[in-house]
Amino acid sequence: MLEVPSDKYQANHVTSYPQRTWPSKILEKAPRWCSTDLRDGNQSLSNPMNIDKKLKLFNHLVQCGFKEIEVAFPSASQTDFDFVRCLIEKKLIPDDVTIQVITQARSDLIEKTIDSLAGAPRAIVHLYNATAPSFRDIVFSQDKKSTVELAVNGAKEIKALCEKHPETIWTLEYSPETFNFTEPEFAVEICEAVASVWKPINKRQMIINLPTTVERNTPNVFADQIERFINTFSSLEHITISVHPHNDRGTGVASAELAMLAGAERIEGCLFGNGERTGNVDLVTLALNLYSQGIEPKLHFPDIRQTVEIVEQCNEIPVHPRHPYAGRLVFTAFSGSHQDAIKKGFSCYNSKLNSVWNIPYLPIDPMDLGCNYEEVIRVNSQSGKSGAAWLLQENHGLLLPKMLQADLSRKVKSHTESTGCEVSLSQLWQLFRQSYGLVNNKSIRLQSYQSKTTKFGQCIEATINHDNKIVECIASGNGLMSALLQGLKDQYGFQVNILDYHEHTLGSRTQSKAASYVQLQSTTSNASFFGVAIEEDATKASLQALLNAYSNLLQAN
Amino acid sequence: MLEVPSDKYQANHVTSYPQRTWPSKILEKAPRWCSTDLRDGNQSLSNPMNIDKKLKLFNHLVQCGFKEIEVAFPSASQTDFDFVRCLIEKKLIPDDVTIQVITQARSDLIEKTIDSLAGAPRAIVHLYNATAPSFRDIVFSQDKKSTVELAVNGAKEIKALCEKHPETIWTLEYSPETFNFTEPEFAVEICEAVASVWKPINKRQMIINLPTTVERNTPNVFADQIERFINTFSSLEHITISVHPHNDRGTGVASAELAMLAGAERIEGCLFGNGERTGNVDLVTLALNLYSQGIEPKLHFPDIRQTVEIVEQCNEIPVHPRHPYAGRLVFTAFSGSHQDAIKKGFSCYNSKLNSVWNIPYLPIDPMDLGCNYEEVIRVNSQSGKSGAAWLLQENHGLLLPKMLQADLSRKVKSHTESTGCEVSLSQLWQLFRQSYGLVNNKSIRLQSYQSKTTKFGQCIEATINHDNKIVECIASGNGLMSALLQGLKDQYGFQVNILDYHEHTLGSRTQSKAASYVQLQSTTSNASFFGVAIEEDATKASLQALLNAYSNLLQAN
Repeated sequence: MLEVPSDKYQANHVTSYPQRTWPSKILEKAPRWCSTDLRDGNQSLSNPMNIDKKLKLFNHLVQCGFKEIEVAFPSASQTDFDFVRCLIEKKLIPDDVTIQVITQARSDLIEKTIDSLAGAPRAIVHLYNATAPSFRDIVFSQDKKSTVELAVNGAKEIKALCEKHPETIWTLEYSPETFNFTEPEFAVEICEAVASVWKPINKRQMIINLPTTVERNTPNVFADQIERFINTFSSLEHITISVHPHNDRGTGVASAELAMLAGAERIEGCLFGNGERTGNVDLVTLALNLYSQGIEPKLHFPDIRQTVEIVEQCNEIPVHPRHPYAGRLVFTAFSGSHQDAIKKGFSCYNSKLNSVWNIPYLPIDPMDLGCNYEEVIRVNSQSGKSGAAWLLQENHGLLLPKMLQADLSRKVKSHTESTGCEVSLSQLWQLFRQSYGLVNNKSIRLQSYQSKTTKFGQCIEATINHDNKIVECIASGNGLMSALLQGLKDQYGFQVNILDYHEHTLGSRTQSKAASYVQLQSTTSNASFFGVAIEEDATKASLQALLNAYSNLLQAN
Repeated sequence: MLEVPSDKYQANHVTSYPQRTWPSKILEKAPRWCSTDLRDGNQSLSNPMNIDKKLKLFNHLVQCGFKEIEVAFPSASQTDFDFVRCLIEKKLIPDDVTIQVITQARSDLIEKTIDSLAGAPRAIVHLYNATAPSFRDIVFSQDKKSTVELAVNGAKEIKALCEKHPETIWTLEYSPETFNFTEPEFAVEICEAVASVWKPINKRQMIINLPTTVERNTPNVFADQIERFINTFSSLEHITISVHPHNDRGTGVASAELAMLAGAERIEGCLFGNGERTGNVDLVTLALNLYSQGIEPKLHFPDIRQTVEIVEQCNEIPVHPRHPYAGRLVFTAFSGSHQDAIKKGFSCYNSKLNSVWNIPYLPIDPMDLGCNYEEVIRVNSQSGKSGAAWLLQENHGLLLPKMLQADLSRKVKSHTESTGCEVSLSQLWQLFRQSYGLVNNKSIRLQSYQSKTTKFGQCIEATINHDNKIVECIASGNGLMSALLQGLKDQYGFQVNILDYHEHTLGSRTQSKAASYVQLQSTTSNASFFGVAIEEDATKASLQALLNAYSNLLQAN
C-alpha cells in the first residue's frame, strides 16, 4: 500500500489569529458580485469563446443582475481586445454595469490594456503580480523590494494613462497573487504601497482583491487571513476588500462565505464554478445560499435551466447532475423515507397561506428557479410506497388509499428489482392501469345496470361483459356494491368482503369524473385484491372498481 | 427583476458557541473513514446497482483502504438484503474490514436487518430516526418524548437481537436526523438515551453519527455544533463521534474538515461525492487534501483514473472535469503566466534531490495519482509562449531559445484565434516543423559541405539543393556559419546577421542527434527569421538551421 511520500509534502504554515471575531457572525447581506466568466473562466477553456459567445454570455450575466463583469485580458489575446472594443463602440454596456479588464504589471501590456478601454464610461483596471514567496523565488527570482516596485510602477503607469482619459470613471483593482500563501504582513505592505500610489478618492475608487489562486488550507484559515488583513490595513477609505477563491480543495464556496463573515465585501467568481483547474468559486451557489436564508442575493436565476444551457454552450463544459441548485438530480428524492417526508411537507405547506418554506430535503423551492415539481420524486428500487403514490397524485390527481399504496409499491419494487432501472412516470402509469383493471383484456366490464329498492334491500340487475361474454347478474344486498358482490358470488362462486372503499372526484383536471378504489378480501384465504375505476358516473365507478378487484381475484385463482 | 419572496424563506436559527476552540486547531491526522457509496450513494441513483456492480465497487473500496463500509439498507430492498448475505456467505469481507447496514427504528425492519447479518464476524448496525423539529412536526406528528422512545426502543430491540448472535462483534451507530437543525440540547438528550441502552464497552462499541442530511448553514456553524455536542455529552468512553455531511450548499468538504477540527473522529461519505440530491461529502477530496499537506490519509488512489472509471460505471454518473484531484482538467493550465510558473517550478523541483513538492498551481503531484504530466500544459489562444515551448520540450526534447519561443507563440496564437480551438500536440508539432524548415517543400537542403582554413578565415564549399536546383556556395568567414552566410549573400543578395544561435544534443531520446536554432536579422529591415534543424552531425545541424532561417527570409521577400 502506498503511503504519503515522506518529506515530499509539507503542511502549509498557518499564522494563528486568535483575535478573530468572524466565527460569531452570520451572513446578513449580499456582497458586491463580480463575474470573471469572460476572463478567468474563459482562459481555462480548451476552446475559449469567440466574440459571439462572449457577447451572449455577457448579456446573460447582465440579465442575472451582475453589475461588475471582468470581460477580458486585452493584452493576452486579440479576441479579448476586440471584444472590449466591441462592447464600448457598440454601446452594449448598461448604465449600471462596469466592465473590468486584467493586466500584468508590464508597460507594454498596461498600455494595450488602457488602449482597449478608450471611451468606456466606467472601467476597473485589474493589476496583479506574484507576491507569494514560492512565486518570488521560483518564478521571478525577485526579492520583496523588487516585487513591491513592480506593483507600484504598474500602478503609477496605470494612473498616468488613466489621467489622460478623464471621460472614464476609473477604479484600480490590485491583486497580490496568491494572497493565501503570501506572508500576511507583506501582503499588507504591498497593498498599502499600491494604494499610496493610486490615492483612492470618491471618484477614483480602489479594490483590493485577495485571491486564493490555489487553495491550500481549510477555509477558516482564509477567513483569519482576511480579518487580519482588514484589521492591519491603515485606512480602507474608498477601498473595497474583494476575494477571489479557487476550489482546489473543494472548499471555494466555504472560503468565500467565511471570508464574508470576516469582512470581505466583494466576491469574484464564475457561474457554476468554471475557471482554471478546479475552477473559481461558484457564484450561483453563493447567491442561492443567501436566497434560501431569506437574504436578497442581488443575483437572480428565474430560469436556472436556461442559465445552465447558456453556460454549457459557451464553456463547452457540462454542469454536474449533483451541482447545488442547478444539477438535474438535486431536487430529486429517490429514498422512500425522503419521499414520504417531502410529500407530507408539501401537504403542510399547501394547507397554509404565506407560510415559510420548510419542505424536508428541499432547501429551496424548485419553482423559484423556474423548475417544476415533476422531478422531485422519482421511483427506483430503493423507493418506498410514497414515491409512486405521489407521482400518480401529482400527475393524474389520484389519491391512493394506504393499502393500495403498499400493494402498488410491492409491484413497483418487483418491477425495478427485475429491470435494475428507475421506473418512469409513463411506465408507472402503465403498471398501475394494468394492475388494477383500468386496462386489461381479461377484465369484467359493466355495460349497464339498474336497481330498485325491494324488501330484500337494494336489488341490482347488472349486465357485464366478461372476456367478451355477456353475463347477467341479478342480486340484492344492503347497497348496490354488496348486491353486485352477491351476484358475482352466484356467478363465479368466490365469496369476498369489501375491506376498503374510497371514491373522489378528479378535481379540476377532468371535472366530471370520479375515481374509485376497492379492496376485496377473500373470506377463505384472507388475500386482498384491489380494483380501481375512473368513470363519469360515480356509482358506475364504484361498481367497475369492484368488478376490477374481483377480476384480479379470478385471475389469481 | 425577481426578488427573494418576503417571508417565504427565513434564516436558520444559529446557537452561538463562543467557547469554541476549533478555529485555532489544524488538521493533523486522518479520521476513520466510512464509505456509504453502496447505501446512501446507491439509493440516490436512477438505476441502483445490481449485486455484480455492488461487489465490484465493494472490492475497489477495500483496495482504496476503507475499513468501514456501509453496504446496504437490507430492509428496504431485496437486492440489498441479498448483497449482505452474499458478502457473508462467500466470505468476501477481509479481516480488517467491517460492514455496516442501516435501518429505521421499526421492529419488523430491525429484525430483517439483523437477519441479514447472521454469521458476520463484525458488523455495525446503523439506527436512525428523525429528531429535527420540522421532521417531528410535519412528518411524524411526534413530540420529543415519543421521538426519544422510538430511538430507545429501536436500540433495545437491536441489542436484544445482537445478544442472540454472540459470534458477531457488534457496534451500534445512532444518527439523530438531521442533527444540524435539531435543538442542540435535544440532540444530546436523545443520543445519551440511546447510549444508556446500548451501554458501550470495549467489545460493544458505539458510534454517534451527526448528519447534516440537508446543509443549512455556513460550515463554521456545524463545527460549533460538533464541539458543543462533544463538550456537553456526559461520557464518550467507547463512543466515536462521526459526521455525515451532505452538500446542499456546496460546503460538504468544508463542513467535514471544520467538524474534524472540532473533534469529530470519523467521516461518512462517498467517492466523488455521490449521494441523494447534491450528494454526500466527497471522501476522495478529503483524503487528498490531507495527503497534499503531508498527512497520511489512510486512503490511497494510486490510479485515480481507474477509480473514476469504476465509480462512473457503477453510478452511471460522470465525475466532473473540474472535480478536485480527479477531473480531467484539474491538472491542466491554459493561462500563459500559469504555464510559465509551472515550467519554472518543474525545473527547480527536478534540479534538487528529495525536495518538497512546490510547483505553482499544482497542489499535488499528478504522478502520485497515476496521472502523467502530458495534460498539465495545454495550449489555447489564452496561452503564452511557455505552453507551446513546454510541450515541445516535454515531448520532443527541444529547448527553444526565448526569442524563438516568442515567435512560435505568435504563430500559435494566430492559429488558435483563427480556429477558436485548442491546439493539440500533433498540430503544434506540425506547425513548428513547417514554420522553421523541418518540413518544407520550398526549403534549402544542405547536401554536402567541405571546409578548410585559409588566410581569409574558414572557407566553405557547400552543395545545396534549393527547390530541386543544385547550387554551389563557396565563401569564407570567421567560421563555417558566417562563411555560408556570405555564400548565400553572393547567391541571393540578402545580407543578414546571426542574432542568436543555440545548439544542444537531444538527450537520451535520440542520443546521436543535435538540435540547432538560428535567428537571422536582416541588416536593412531589422526583421528576424528563424530556422531549426535536427541532424546527427552537429555542424550540419547548425548549417541546415541557418539555411532554414534564410529560406524563411527568401519566402518573406
